[in-house]
Amino acid sequence: MLSARQAQHLLTAGEERAARIGVPVNIAVLDAGAHLKAFLRMDGAVLGSIDIALKKARTAVLFGAASEAVWEYCKPGAPAPGLELSNDGLAPFAGGIPLKDRNGAIVGAVGVSGGAVPQDLEIAQAAVAVFYF
Amino acid sequence: MLSARQAQHLLTAGEERAARIGVPVNIAVLDAGAHLKAFLRMDGAVLGSIDIALKKARTAVLFGAASEAVWEYCKPGAPAPGLELSNDGLAPFAGGIPLKDRNGAIVGAVGVSGGAVPQDLEIAQAAVAVFYF
Amino acid sequence: MLSARQAQHLLTAGEERAARIGVPVNIAVLDAGAHLKAFLRMDGAVLGSIDIALKKARTAVLFGAASEAVWEYCKPGAPAPGLELSNDGLAPFAGGIPLKDRNGAIVGAVGVSGGAVPQDLEIAQAAVAVFYF
Amino acid sequence: MLSARQAQHLLTAGEERAARIGVPVNIAVLDAGAHLKAFLRMDGAVLGSIDIALKKARTAVLFGAASEAVWEYCKPGAPAPGLELSNDGLAPFAGGIPLKDRNGAIVGAVGVSGGAVPQDLEIAQAAVAVFYF
Repeated sequence: MLSARQAQHLLTAGEERAARIGVPVNIAVLDAGAHLKAFLRMDGAVLGSIDIALKKARTAVLFGAASEAVWEYCKPGAPAPGLELSNDGLAPFAGGIPLKDRNGAIVGAVGVSGGAVPQDLEIAQAAVAVFYF
Repeated sequence: MLSARQAQHLLTAGEERAARIGVPVNIAVLDAGAHLKAFLRMDGAVLGSIDIALKKARTAVLFGAASEAVWEYCKPGAPAPGLELSNDGLAPFAGGIPLKDRNGAIVGAVGVSGGAVPQDLEIAQAAVAVFYF
Repeated sequence: MLSARQAQHLLTAGEERAARIGVPVNIAVLDAGAHLKAFLRMDGAVLGSIDIALKKARTAVLFGAASEAVWEYCKPGAPAPGLELSNDGLAPFAGGIPLKDRNGAIVGAVGVSGGAVPQDLEIAQAAVAVFYF
Repeated sequence: MLSARQAQHLLTAGEERAARIGVPVNIAVLDAGAHLKAFLRMDGAVLGSIDIALKKARTAVLFGAASEAVWEYCKPGAPAPGLELSNDGLAPFAGGIPLKDRNGAIVGAVGVSGGAVPQDLEIAQAAVAVFYF
């Protein structure tokens, strides 16, 4: 189970990377049931990205995959059009990463939003990099 | 902070432009937290454009940008497909313009809907043109 | 049909009374279909009363009666418990007043919130008093 | 404007008090527009209290008052029955406290849930006690 200490550790690692590259973001950490565990909005992050950070993390937990992987199923021509409308709306683009324990079970996810998509991804990866289980 | 007097001034300026070009519209003014400050539906504006005016203004506040700028991120081939599904649904097309103070901070937004998109944009611009801070 | 000019006239009358008694409020005007026609949040009105002003006006239109009249049907011991949960939530207390034409048909409503309930009622009555049809 | 640093400081102060009295809680910090700024769920806090912590803080921001003050308006016999149904549902009981600047303007709120109501209040007060503006 994801602890509060781990969640805060992830937030701090993400915040440090975001500060280093100069991009204020929102960072959300959800647990294995997609319930909110910890959250931080850095000063200057746009309000609209709060919901996106939460939805990226939610997308990652709900499908046990990076948020952008969901797009492969619902993009034009793919077999599940409208998939992104399920679950009160997904965010099928990069910045949401699942957290897995040593057996590969999903224990939560991180979602980052506020920068360009590659920046959000870099920050989410920096957060997840400090996670161990 | 956006005052009631300023908000009404924006509504009047928008309404005058709309009347001049003969297009009945809805005009919404939101504050910095995306909360409703003032609103007017001109006679003859279609009911469906009430929500669109509100959502255009909301989109502009939440992302600190003209509403159509959001489309650049979520249009086909862009890096954030489904972005328009966030925040209870955005309106990523022209007619929502953020209001900024002299330091560039977002203090609210205007959203206009009811005409053709270029008309809505023209009316929103006429409203914002009378704003000073 | 309620015109934009009439709706603004109602807002102004309500605002003047509110200013005179020193209570910043939200004033909402809806049409016969409970759709937003005009709105003003006076400076200093609490954010939470935006939704209440809208819901009072909505309650008045939907039931063709003053908003507090709905409470008679759903208060403890009355025959319709839970009525206030219908229609996405009603506001069954004073401050919402229907607008009627000379034949008694509902053409809209005013809703006021931000002060004590008797103050909201006084302001709503002052707004409706300038309505003629 | 409430900073990320201040929000985290509030979370830490609340968490310390909660740990001292042995009650795992959720602590939410919202900004002046009721948008999420920071959040922490302590290990062992029940899932159902996530939403309550958020709603308590939301209630405090929206009405510029301690969350339980709203109950005085909507409790049985009070003048605003159903008030708690507004704004997507309020949490009109103790544990939500507004944050004010030196001029008395609302800059955000803290909401705590997970313990008995008096415990939640004590923890929220401990969080707010470290706030200065």
